[in-house]
Amino acid sequence: MGIELTILGCHSATPRTNAHPTAQYLKINERHILIDCGEGTQVLLRQQKIPFAKIKHIFISHLHGDHFFGLVGLISTFGLLDRRTELNIYGPKGIKEIITLQLKLSKSWTSFPLLFHELKNKESEIIFEDKKIKVSTIPLNHRVYTNGFLFEEKPSLRKLNMENIAMEPEIEICDYHNLKKGKDFVKQDGTILGNDDLTLPPRHTHSYAFCSDTAYKPDIVPLLKGVSFLYHESTFLEDKKNLTEKTKHSTAKEAALIAKAAQVKTLILGHYSSRYNNLDEFKIEAKTVFDDVELAESGKVFKI
Amino acid sequence: MGIELTILGCHSATPRTNAHPTAQYLKINERHILIDCGEGTQVLLRQQKIPFAKIKHIFISHLHGDHFFGLVGLISTFGLLDRRTELNIYGPKGIKEIITLQLKLSKSWTSFPLLFHELKNKESEIIFEDKKIKVSTIPLNHRVYTNGFLFEEKPSLRKLNMENIAMEPEIEICDYHNLKKGKDFVKQDGTILGNDDLTLPPRHTHSYAFCSDTAYKPDIVPLLKGVSFLYHESTFLEDKKNLTEKTKHSTAKEAALIAKAAQVKTLILGHYSSRYNNLDEFKIEAKTVFDDVELAESGKVFKI
Repeated sequence: MGIELTILGCHSATPRTNAHPTAQYLKINERHILIDCGEGTQVLLRQQKIPFAKIKHIFISHLHGDHFFGLVGLISTFGLLDRRTELNIYGPKGIKEIITLQLKLSKSWTSFPLLFHELKNKESEIIFEDKKIKVSTIPLNHRVYTNGFLFEEKPSLRKLNMENIAMEPEIEICDYHNLKKGKDFVKQDGTILGNDDLTLPPRHTHSYAFCSDTAYKPDIVPLLKGVSFLYHESTFLEDKKNLTEKTKHSTAKEAALIAKAAQVKTLILGHYSSRYNNLDEFKIEAKTVFDDVELAESGKVFKI
Repeated sequence: MGIELTILGCHSATPRTNAHPTAQYLKINERHILIDCGEGTQVLLRQQKIPFAKIKHIFISHLHGDHFFGLVGLISTFGLLDRRTELNIYGPKGIKEIITLQLKLSKSWTSFPLLFHELKNKESEIIFEDKKIKVSTIPLNHRVYTNGFLFEEKPSLRKLNMENIAMEPEIEICDYHNLKKGKDFVKQDGTILGNDDLTLPPRHTHSYAFCSDTAYKPDIVPLLKGVSFLYHESTFLEDKKNLTEKTKHSTAKEAALIAKAAQVKTLILGHYSSRYNNLDEFKIEAKTVFDDVELAESGKVFKI
């Protein structure tokens, strides 16, 4: 339960010796997820000793190479490892053609069900939901069609208040599940015992919002309200603000403005331009606006 | 002049932390060439400090991922680095569609001429030739359409024999070029001075043959006669010879049999299966057949 986010790569543009393009591994409420998959991601997963066969869902924000050129290689490796579990790919329209063309020409059909969920909606939508989590898109503003993703834990069942339950002999073990689900208890004589007296609230749920790549886009704030972790790209500092319009990227200050307006718990910065050698400057700039700022770094783990 | 071959990656199948898929950088007679381009090749080029902007020709043997999944990323990086020089890609039919589809969907058209030379001939053919080098295909036997490549230096001009030339006052500096090209010299009185007396043979030319991936295929031997370096895949040792038929790969012994029959100078082994931890066993097995055997290793340079 909870959230464990491992940063695999967090730099922009081209992969370099010590600067890997975007990829993140997210464990949320027992679900194993990969977010973006730049070239070399499968090697980074191995380096971090992540049991990547468990990944069932891969979310691709957009079709710039630094966010998906590692995907076809990872899928091929799953094939070579004789994976049998289904794999779901969520990404912009076109991603299916890119992957299947390469699998076809290399005569490397997968041994497992490979399911594509192509996105083209410009409004936020729920794209995956099960008992444990819910995933929605966060429409972003970039040079090509791009989505961020909001990952939310589903509320778990209420906890039994055993002290109060013990005082009601009519309540049996087989009634517990209905109580956990929030139902009142009706006694033989018709008296209703309110659920609030018999149970305690479920544990607090957590959420993670991934926003990359994007220009400053304040209209996403309502989607991000109160998330536990917000990863927001900060390709530039304010000294290069003139570049943000053409490239459709953000500064560290702009990322912090979004975090502040959305009242998130922690802001994580990343997608740094190779122009900058000292990443601390990103943190310093963001902290002028918002206090709880962390820097993404390859191998760093954020937990809640 | 001469040959300088840098091994970037030389392992089969999936990229791992210390095992990179096939890619080689070849300098031959002042030409800069990349052979195959597995995932992560651009990072290996940077690690080896190879001035990769100079590469004008990329040869792709076949469309299995471990031989070309790094190509689209390298091309994109050339674009980001604002390359202007043309880039030629030689590879199986289909490679153009794979690359252009991804460039189109990412709206990342290149700033330089990107020229595809798609191959489908099953016989050996010359696919590139200029003043300095000649490149021919070596049709191989693999699970998909595959070519090896033979890179040959073109003979340079003959050298002047200054001792003999000095004894012929009629020969002037402006005649030297014709002599270097092999022409005889005709004196005013009609006497012919033979070129053999006035010049010395040009330096010996060198050649490199790349053969990966392939099952044992003795009919390529005539194409490889006397090459300086032969890289021949050795995915397996003889203990796994039963796997070579289905997978269309070779053993180290089979690679050595090819080297011996073709009377090459040096055999370089590579494309090792991850089943084997001790690569020395490949060398030991090959040496039972052929003496001059080297092991490909990431970062190793072979020069002549």
